[in-house]
Amino acid sequence: MIRIGLDIGGTGIKIGAVDESNRIIAQTSIPTRQDLPFETQVDQMADAVLGLLDPSVDPRLTMDQVESIGAGIPGLADDNGIVIFCTNMGWKNVPLRESFQRRINKPFYVDNDANVAALAESIAGVSAGTSSSVFITLGTGIGCGIMINGKIWKGFHGIGGEMGHMILELDGEPCTCGNRGCLERYCSATALIQMARRMVAGHPESLILSLAGNDPMKIVAKTVFDALREGDPFAEKLFRRYVSCLSQSIANVVNFLDPEVILLGGGVSKAGDVLLNAVREEYPKYVVYGDMPMPPIRIAALGADAGIIGAAMLS
Amino acid sequence: MIRIGLDIGGTGIKIGAVDESNRIIAQTSIPTRQDLPFETQVDQMADAVLGLLDPSVDPRLTMDQVESIGAGIPGLADDNGIVIFCTNMGWKNVPLRESFQRRINKPFYVDNDANVAALAESIAGVSAGTSSSVFITLGTGIGCGIMINGKIWKGFHGIGGEMGHMILELDGEPCTCGNRGCLERYCSATALIQMARRMVAGHPESLILSLAGNDPMKIVAKTVFDALREGDPFAEKLFRRYVSCLSQSIANVVNFLDPEVILLGGGVSKAGDVLLNAVREEYPKYVVYGDMPMPPIRIAALGADAGIIGAAMLS
Repeated sequence: MIRIGLDIGGTGIKIGAVDESNRIIAQTSIPTRQDLPFETQVDQMADAVLGLLDPSVDPRLTMDQVESIGAGIPGLADDNGIVIFCTNMGWKNVPLRESFQRRINKPFYVDNDANVAALAESIAGVSAGTSSSVFITLGTGIGCGIMINGKIWKGFHGIGGEMGHMILELDGEPCTCGNRGCLERYCSATALIQMARRMVAGHPESLILSLAGNDPMKIVAKTVFDALREGDPFAEKLFRRYVSCLSQSIANVVNFLDPEVILLGGGVSKAGDVLLNAVREEYPKYVVYGDMPMPPIRIAALGADAGIIGAAMLS
Repeated sequence: MIRIGLDIGGTGIKIGAVDESNRIIAQTSIPTRQDLPFETQVDQMADAVLGLLDPSVDPRLTMDQVESIGAGIPGLADDNGIVIFCTNMGWKNVPLRESFQRRINKPFYVDNDANVAALAESIAGVSAGTSSSVFITLGTGIGCGIMINGKIWKGFHGIGGEMGHMILELDGEPCTCGNRGCLERYCSATALIQMARRMVAGHPESLILSLAGNDPMKIVAKTVFDALREGDPFAEKLFRRYVSCLSQSIANVVNFLDPEVILLGGGVSKAGDVLLNAVREEYPKYVVYGDMPMPPIRIAALGADAGIIGAAMLS
């Protein structure tokens, strides 16, 4: 049997067939077309799934073999397969399951992309075999997927996992959500970049600026880590501040929920060991029971595949 | 059948027998004696349980009828009934279950008092019938008990539920734990009292000071609420700040975990509707999905009995 996963993103939709060993055996993609009506979007996705089912590529790629279809969306869906909203697709209260099943009559599931990634990692990735985990995505914003007792935890009303808008600083940095001091303003790639731009405005001698071709708008998260590796003291200072904020955010999760493991994903996590080692050293300082065993921090393993694999695993 | 609950507190240990309708049918108490050796403390507790079993008071008060015995402690215990620490009793890594069972051979359970109170409310109190809840105690410190899928959630390593030390303000108020900006420094009764003392130092004309007999050290949480009811503008200002901090803390729980219901208990919750109504109005402003259904806020119902009832319900 195979399962189909759709990873619905801002610029493209990736579609993959996943086998019983959680491997992607076939994959395709279509562009995200926010301009089309909902039913046409669903048609295009269904057509892409049908196009993927080519037994000449792999004998398992037939409709008979398809056990279920799942979709991960950057938005909110309920248990009936209704997408409450998904800004990237222009969806608000659309019956994704019902519409999709009119084209392909298989069990269909939809969930938030951060939840989907947490699920994928907990089955086939770096948290495989754990019963509880919190997956934090350090990207443009902060994504968060929570696994409890081996299942995605979306909250009773389906509004949980919004770690990026937990308040980390009373009356702090203004956030796009309208509040102040949201964790996302301190721990996302965007936050790191903004901190770097402010830093080079005051310290144009920082290596960060020259590595960005002397254009502050070209600074990305990687620029800061590149300058850090070169020993730039301004990058070091930024990094320390970022690690402190991230460590306090992780400690908040541990002091409150204490999952079996914490995963980091997203763009900033590509910094790898330099980030991981710093956070591992720093975060226990903020844990109440600092001398007790506490969740290890790991970097997510599945990368971009987590979206397809996790969506395929939805049930 | 009956179950015995021990509520181990800083000044006294309350012992009660709870029937199948979750009612306390007999109750006694002994003083907390931190100065005695552990085995003697256990002996005294066991003697108090034996003393409670008087069938002339209620025919069910016999050892045959006792199904289990549970203890709630202001500290940390593991699943083997070992108390990792409990400062009030002077305990560190003591085998409470084993020692107790040497005196009374019944199933014996021990858990943190905030967890025990959350359990009691979820079975016999204001969150009865819910599957998930977060019980926040606004007392000298901040206690927190989390229920998920009908069970106490202590975290994988047993160190969760320490909401009082989640950081609400980067580089904020110094906390007794050694860190800065812990939620407890903004939302506990102690925090409210400290804010009030600072306030009256600058504004001796505040009604808070006269209601405290002009002695700032006599200000308690109730003083602030009494002054608020009398229309004191300084009390109003303090209250607004307190409600804002508490609302942001509650929103953090909702944005992250989204339980079915949030309960407030402890000294400050005695303010009742004035607090409840203000928080109910304020906290949704900080919830990402502010127009979706979200957890109702309720004030705990069992009060001081929650300690005995919840301990008796441990299993």
